[in-house]
Amino acid sequence: MSDQKLPTRSEDFSEWYNQLVIRAELADYAPVRGCMIVRPYGWALWENITAALDKRFKATGHVNAAFPLLIPRSFIDKEKSHVEGFSPELAVVTIGGGEELEEPLVIRPTSETIIGYAYAKWIQSWRDLPVLINQWNSVVRWELRTKLFLRTLEFFWQEGHTAHATNDEAEGETRQMLDIYTDFAVNEAAVPVIPGRKSDSERFAGAERTYSIEAMMGDGKALQAGTSHNLGQNFAKAFEIRYLDKNGELQHCWTTSWGLSTRFIGAIIMVHGDDQGLILPPRLAPFQLVIIPIYKTEDEKSGVMEVATRIRSELIAADIRVKVDEREGYSPGFKFNDWEMRGVPLRMELGPKDVAKDSVVFARRDRPGKEGKSFVSQQGIAATVADMLREIQKSLFDRALAFREANTQHPENYAAFKTAVEKGFARSYWCGRAECEARIKEETKATARCIPLEQSGGPGKCILCGEPAADQAIFAKAY
Amino acid sequence: MSDQKLPTRSEDFSEWYNQLVIRAELADYAPVRGCMIVRPYGWALWENITAALDKRFKATGHVNAAFPLLIPRSFIDKEKSHVEGFSPELAVVTIGGGEELEEPLVIRPTSETIIGYAYAKWIQSWRDLPVLINQWNSVVRWELRTKLFLRTLEFFWQEGHTAHATNDEAEGETRQMLDIYTDFAVNEAAVPVIPGRKSDSERFAGAERTYSIEAMMGDGKALQAGTSHNLGQNFAKAFEIRYLDKNGELQHCWTTSWGLSTRFIGAIIMVHGDDQGLILPPRLAPFQLVIIPIYKTEDEKSGVMEVATRIRSELIAADIRVKVDEREGYSPGFKFNDWEMRGVPLRMELGPKDVAKDSVVFARRDRPGKEGKSFVSQQGIAATVADMLREIQKSLFDRALAFREANTQHPENYAAFKTAVEKGFARSYWCGRAECEARIKEETKATARCIPLEQSGGPGKCILCGEPAADQAIFAKAY
Repeated sequence: MSDQKLPTRSEDFSEWYNQLVIRAELADYAPVRGCMIVRPYGWALWENITAALDKRFKATGHVNAAFPLLIPRSFIDKEKSHVEGFSPELAVVTIGGGEELEEPLVIRPTSETIIGYAYAKWIQSWRDLPVLINQWNSVVRWELRTKLFLRTLEFFWQEGHTAHATNDEAEGETRQMLDIYTDFAVNEAAVPVIPGRKSDSERFAGAERTYSIEAMMGDGKALQAGTSHNLGQNFAKAFEIRYLDKNGELQHCWTTSWGLSTRFIGAIIMVHGDDQGLILPPRLAPFQLVIIPIYKTEDEKSGVMEVATRIRSELIAADIRVKVDEREGYSPGFKFNDWEMRGVPLRMELGPKDVAKDSVVFARRDRPGKEGKSFVSQQGIAATVADMLREIQKSLFDRALAFREANTQHPENYAAFKTAVEKGFARSYWCGRAECEARIKEETKATARCIPLEQSGGPGKCILCGEPAADQAIFAKAY
Repeated sequence: MSDQKLPTRSEDFSEWYNQLVIRAELADYAPVRGCMIVRPYGWALWENITAALDKRFKATGHVNAAFPLLIPRSFIDKEKSHVEGFSPELAVVTIGGGEELEEPLVIRPTSETIIGYAYAKWIQSWRDLPVLINQWNSVVRWELRTKLFLRTLEFFWQEGHTAHATNDEAEGETRQMLDIYTDFAVNEAAVPVIPGRKSDSERFAGAERTYSIEAMMGDGKALQAGTSHNLGQNFAKAFEIRYLDKNGELQHCWTTSWGLSTRFIGAIIMVHGDDQGLILPPRLAPFQLVIIPIYKTEDEKSGVMEVATRIRSELIAADIRVKVDEREGYSPGFKFNDWEMRGVPLRMELGPKDVAKDSVVFARRDRPGKEGKSFVSQQGIAATVADMLREIQKSLFDRALAFREANTQHPENYAAFKTAVEKGFARSYWCGRAECEARIKEETKATARCIPLEQSGGPGKCILCGEPAADQAIFAKAY
């Protein structure tokens, strides 16, 4: 904590982000370059994210397991595109127990290979399919330019890995998981996202098709917030994942993988935050409500604390995550600012006058100043809070969606396109050729974020070359 | 799954264990020597263990966080005993992103050092204390002789790390966490344990005092099932974790650490299992009840499945973890054996006759054959199942305790001591000197497992040297 002001978002969005992550105690820098420590407040947010996702995974028949951190170096080489994509980013263990290892081991950058090895052992017949496994873990990729949550050497995520009897089933799974990520982003994180297919150049190393959800940050840039890959038979062939079909014939499986990481915390910060700090969506906030007791005398204190304690119990009984800020030696004003910066969606102020009137004062984090204040009876407080949290959740989503729409253009020509990607998304026809994509990137720094699943308006003409284009793509600068 | 029988426990306890872990699909061998894959059934058990512990940690004011996997090699060297203890077991990363690293990094064998670094940054004044943080993760120790769950290169655990203003508080925390482990073992895992203090030779590398819970396995050997360390000011001094006290003086903190790992799954297997396979304590079992539908005709099947589905819904509504084994092509007898091997505490058999009589057949896993069978009405089935699960939980604990008592002796002399540790625990006075401990180990292979907190009978004479001894210790061969 410090009394120094954050830079504003318009002054320096990147520095606003960096300072906020540290000052809100979400994360800290580790002694190893590019690694992060996720502090308790940040981890509590991640725990809520994992719970919301895990529930959805289990409801669709997935189970969790744990595969090892260490992978023989030779495994990475078995799938051609995979080795090209990941070789430059590997952390390599060469010494174990004081001795040089015969074969170096890599710390998993992702687990397709070691899981491929296991599935080849476990899967014998069509009866064993589908295999629907997820893992919560961390992976290491040797990134050069790092930023807390957005890109770190080690990051935390879940990686789902499934095996199926047919391509159709694998494609269905890939799309189902994309839907789950979309549902999570929209309904838990209040982050509007565009689900779509990645261009070939942005595909996962080893995938046939990669889908992603793309979100617009507060500076108009895009962030890929979750990915789902149809791996076809690439890993099944590399690792000999085969099954006997009902006719007794040996077939290769069709596999998928899908992941969402601590990067998503970066999305929450940059979509909802304002110049005062974080604004956390109520459904994921570690504390949904903070109670600030206000008093001067010991007498006032005991009256206020009695009511605060009673209200806390009522809220806990209603499954509301509540914190009473009982810290001594800090003024109410300091506490207001502190919790505003930390993004608690709703603040309750409780002083001797409120106690006397059987009321409380609420301040909504999403509406600064008087507009967000209300004076409410203590009667039925849990229901009141639950309603207000639902309203805040909805208003955060609506605001983020309105912002994205205001900053998404459908440029008529390439000149307008160039202006559009300076401040947000351009939704434009694209012929699908890598040459156009590369030239656009070179000239504007914008990349094809995804080809949205939802397409309307039929075919058109590529924004760059004017050749026929089947689909529109979202172009933007990206994190 | 295979129809081959397990070796019996009396034939070959070690081989019974190894085969059971694989065949019950709890875990599998990884391609890297000494590493394990925890399969979904094993991981579901671990998830229940983590939930039971995490609830207890949070109820006592602890929060979770995530510290990095990679630690600079030099950190390990900062605490003298720590480096001696852990240096031989390190996995060392020397290459990152294709380049040789200037300073090698180690994969955490435990996180005292990196957490010490963070606490030194975060803690300024007495207001910041205590810091009560836990982390769920995996660590790597280069073990030579490995066994699934009991000793693996990578294992999964939680490591709690706390910092306090006084030694008394740190000692209180250390003992509180030992109590929590004891409560968890007894009340969730039905594993009777002896909480006690470790001898100096068995102390954690860098601790002032180490406490542990010790359990007796089905072969009479001891297993250390959780440890709690008072680290004194050793790490605070090595990492300069200091705070300004209320008088404005700079003081070193007092720190603790405590952990419980996937090793505990080994304890559950070896305490409760029998020649048919696992027996899982109901409170931790992934499935508490399995329903086996029995039918021959399609007509019978539809009647049976309708009732099975209804009962499943009733049980799920009562928070009972239930599985209906709907697999086609396997006989009921095969399914009985399969779920017996996998240790599901309670089986429900449901055939056309049961449907007609509005009843079901139960078979308790802890009582083989007719003794464990009962015929019960379908009315109020959820309450019946809940009662039976409670009974099974209690009977498993009682049986394990009776076994431990039957195999614990209070030998009168060293000759009797030698016989005692051949088949179980010897509870004997020990002078506390390392020489006696070492000679006992050399001559009997038994080690001082712990000095139980509960001591009765006043002082006595060392079982080996006859010198005065303040306390009794538990001696046993150990995993």
